[in-house]
Amino acid sequence: MKNGLCLILLSGGMDSATVLYWARNKGYQCRCLIFDYGQRHRRELNSAKSLAHAAHAPFDLIEIKLPWKSTSSLLSPKINIPSHPIEQIGKKGIPSTYVPGRNTLFLAYALSAADALKARAIALGPNALDFSGYPDCRPAYYQAMAKTARLGTKRGSEGNPIKLLTPIIHMNKSEIVRLGECLGVPWKLTWSCYAGGAQPCRRCDSCQLRAKGFRIAGIADPLLSPIDSL
Amino acid sequence: MKNGLCLILLSGGMDSATVLYWARNKGYQCRCLIFDYGQRHRRELNSAKSLAHAAHAPFDLIEIKLPWKSTSSLLSPKINIPSHPIEQIGKKGIPSTYVPGRNTLFLAYALSAADALKARAIALGPNALDFSGYPDCRPAYYQAMAKTARLGTKRGSEGNPIKLLTPIIHMNKSEIVRLGECLGVPWKLTWSCYAGGAQPCRRCDSCQLRAKGFRIAGIADPLLSPIDSL
Repeated sequence: MKNGLCLILLSGGMDSATVLYWARNKGYQCRCLIFDYGQRHRRELNSAKSLAHAAHAPFDLIEIKLPWKSTSSLLSPKINIPSHPIEQIGKKGIPSTYVPGRNTLFLAYALSAADALKARAIALGPNALDFSGYPDCRPAYYQAMAKTARLGTKRGSEGNPIKLLTPIIHMNKSEIVRLGECLGVPWKLTWSCYAGGAQPCRRCDSCQLRAKGFRIAGIADPLLSPIDSL
Repeated sequence: MKNGLCLILLSGGMDSATVLYWARNKGYQCRCLIFDYGQRHRRELNSAKSLAHAAHAPFDLIEIKLPWKSTSSLLSPKINIPSHPIEQIGKKGIPSTYVPGRNTLFLAYALSAADALKARAIALGPNALDFSGYPDCRPAYYQAMAKTARLGTKRGSEGNPIKLLTPIIHMNKSEIVRLGECLGVPWKLTWSCYAGGAQPCRRCDSCQLRAKGFRIAGIADPLLSPIDSL
């Protein structure tokens, strides 16, 4: 593993799964961070663990408890999951699935781990094209966070900055599907649906973006029956 | 409370206590965030709660569990607490009390809370003069974090950036004591000692910096007997 240790923020979705396989392919020794932040369903967490196992990567499960009242439909079952027409996703302001400060929290834990474990890099899968309009998925945010990482850690201040790798940030969903397919991502283990039922709901914003990606890439999504994925 | 809601990162030490009273004096409605991150002693946490009560400010207690092995003497009783000659404190590299990524973790929770609760500001008490040489106490780090806060939150992206207030960052310890004294900080409720015994150890770096501050300010520290504080 010529490139040293890389911590992967693994959610269980198709984007972070692709990033895990990308980092492994780059020669990094991968260790996954999986976050339990009170998601309304467990399905995503189980997918993340299965993906780490499949990639032979160890993982840490990190519990985040936010004591203030939730304003996100990903945390509170009382708020409806959004289901926009596909052309409006990410263009109607910040949706109810936004979890305040989520990516900053994930990255703060990752920075702490990277500094303690002497990791070379942190890799994660934000995407600024086929995305839901979250502020913490934009390239400028990651540039600011990379500077925070360089200045706020022991490794950074000693001349060994922890790299922040966002390899798919400028890819659309079909490009991510094609890259993941090349790298051997086991799509059947991933989970994208916000609703977390036995099968993907095929209506929520996340299901729609996933379906669009597979359709344009011309690849069948193994989570859907052949008719669904046409 | 003309200035709106301000979240205070309250540790129980004299610096963050001064910041709490400073923010109250500025007309902010204060709400404290107190972090239990596995400190080797509870004394500091109890001080923080007492200080919040004394200032009539509500508080949230946030538990942070770091699953990786600790490299900090503030977390592991197996590592000795540093006790440098006073003139060497902060000048011999990063000491063993450094907790990897600690301030980034605290700020990430604070940003999440501020975004969820629509707070106007976050105030905290880093100090870059009489300090222990931590990378995450330097002004440049807070500038990067302020940019992260502006770009990575809903409030920031909607034109209501969450202010990051570090009012004592350029003060030395005696200036902090004088400011706190003016504002009525109940010093007897604060706790600075790294060791966490029944009385301050008077040897650790933190006790020495506190003693220097009170001595130069010409104010008696009520935690010490009259002879100690001479």
